[in-house]
Amino acid sequence: MTNENYTDNIKNAIKAAQNGEMFFIYDSDSREGETDFVITASSVTPDDVRWMRRDGGGLICVVIDGENSQKLGLPFISDVLRDEARSNPALGNTVEKGGDLAYDNRSSFSIWVNHRKTRTGIPDNDRALTINELSNITEKCMKGEDVSFGSEFRTPGHVALLRAADRLVHDRKGQTELSIAIAKMADVTPAMVVCEMLDDSNGRALSKEDAKEYAKLHNLVFLEGQEIVDAYEQWEQA
Amino acid sequence: MTNENYTDNIKNAIKAAQNGEMFFIYDSDSREGETDFVITASSVTPDDVRWMRRDGGGLICVVIDGENSQKLGLPFISDVLRDEARSNPALGNTVEKGGDLAYDNRSSFSIWVNHRKTRTGIPDNDRALTINELSNITEKCMKGEDVSFGSEFRTPGHVALLRAADRLVHDRKGQTELSIAIAKMADVTPAMVVCEMLDDSNGRALSKEDAKEYAKLHNLVFLEGQEIVDAYEQWEQA
Repeated sequence: MTNENYTDNIKNAIKAAQNGEMFFIYDSDSREGETDFVITASSVTPDDVRWMRRDGGGLICVVIDGENSQKLGLPFISDVLRDEARSNPALGNTVEKGGDLAYDNRSSFSIWVNHRKTRTGIPDNDRALTINELSNITEKCMKGEDVSFGSEFRTPGHVALLRAADRLVHDRKGQTELSIAIAKMADVTPAMVVCEMLDDSNGRALSKEDAKEYAKLHNLVFLEGQEIVDAYEQWEQA
Repeated sequence: MTNENYTDNIKNAIKAAQNGEMFFIYDSDSREGETDFVITASSVTPDDVRWMRRDGGGLICVVIDGENSQKLGLPFISDVLRDEARSNPALGNTVEKGGDLAYDNRSSFSIWVNHRKTRTGIPDNDRALTINELSNITEKCMKGEDVSFGSEFRTPGHVALLRAADRLVHDRKGQTELSIAIAKMADVTPAMVVCEMLDDSNGRALSKEDAKEYAKLHNLVFLEGQEIVDAYEQWEQA
């Protein structure tokens, strides 16, 4: 099975990922119903960070695939907090459990980090550096090089890490997994930036229609979850 | 010692806090050198969330004073992660320790939360609800009512909680403590929203001069850390 069988939209998303261009992923009507800005972490610039915070407005997060998250020592924060709750019962009730979310079984949050070369961590230059270096360490880790996450990053910080489910779209169909599925098909480092698009007029997430219109206006690729799932399953069987 | 001895600027900030109006706090040149949007958590609307994310651009956080954070079971996340590192040594090196930050001894981050009545937690309506309810539970807690944080909130989520140092400006002079010092002087619930102001033109934090100009343009109060410290020390002695 080669790329020839993908839809044009998927082929264009793969090219966008390979060229470090922004694209958009809407999960599905039955899930969050939200569209995220998506770009490879390796290619993010301070201008991209500004773009996402101004026109997206959500949290600027870096997704790392499950295997490399594991190797880098990056836990699901819910697991950490559940451990902690043994000595802080008040906290225990707060930690998300199955059934808590309307749209999925669990959220993907790991820890929040800053690169050690940042000062406060929040300005666009700082966040771009943190994000670029998260891609670098993921790439090194993937190649089997010796890495020390704590030598380069500190927590708490201002960039959220999300950990993708191990079996990607077979386990979970959030932007977390969908963005990494694109990275795998594009054969780029599985470290992707995502940021939710919000509506400035009504306090809600930007509608699918408006997000599509925004993508069209900027001549960028807009994907829906199911088409990524279909293509990824083809890719796995190839 | 009465309010009469405060500067006009401090008097106006106290009024702003009592009226639920936005104001600004610049910490100091020798610290972060950043200005934050500041407003009482009780009065935040979805429009205010949009305003902060569009014109501020930093993380939208809720500060709770040390005493109520303690009662609500809200830990410093660095303490939680340090505990966790006992069984995950890779994580241990990442957790911030004294000397890691250029501008202070430690950061204020606690956990990230969503109110349980939100769906995804990120849209302006969701974040405003989470923030308003954080003020409500802090107020109940302060009055000695029985509260269960986990019945109302889940973690992980999309609003960062910051925990103020117990002795406020005597321990630390960040926006975290400075905003709560204003809340104490204004006799309002010690739950305050803060969000860093970023510069759209150069990838840095907005300069003090530009932040002052922004405040003036919107006819809102702009405070510097030292004038809050001075007023708070007067207030304590009164």
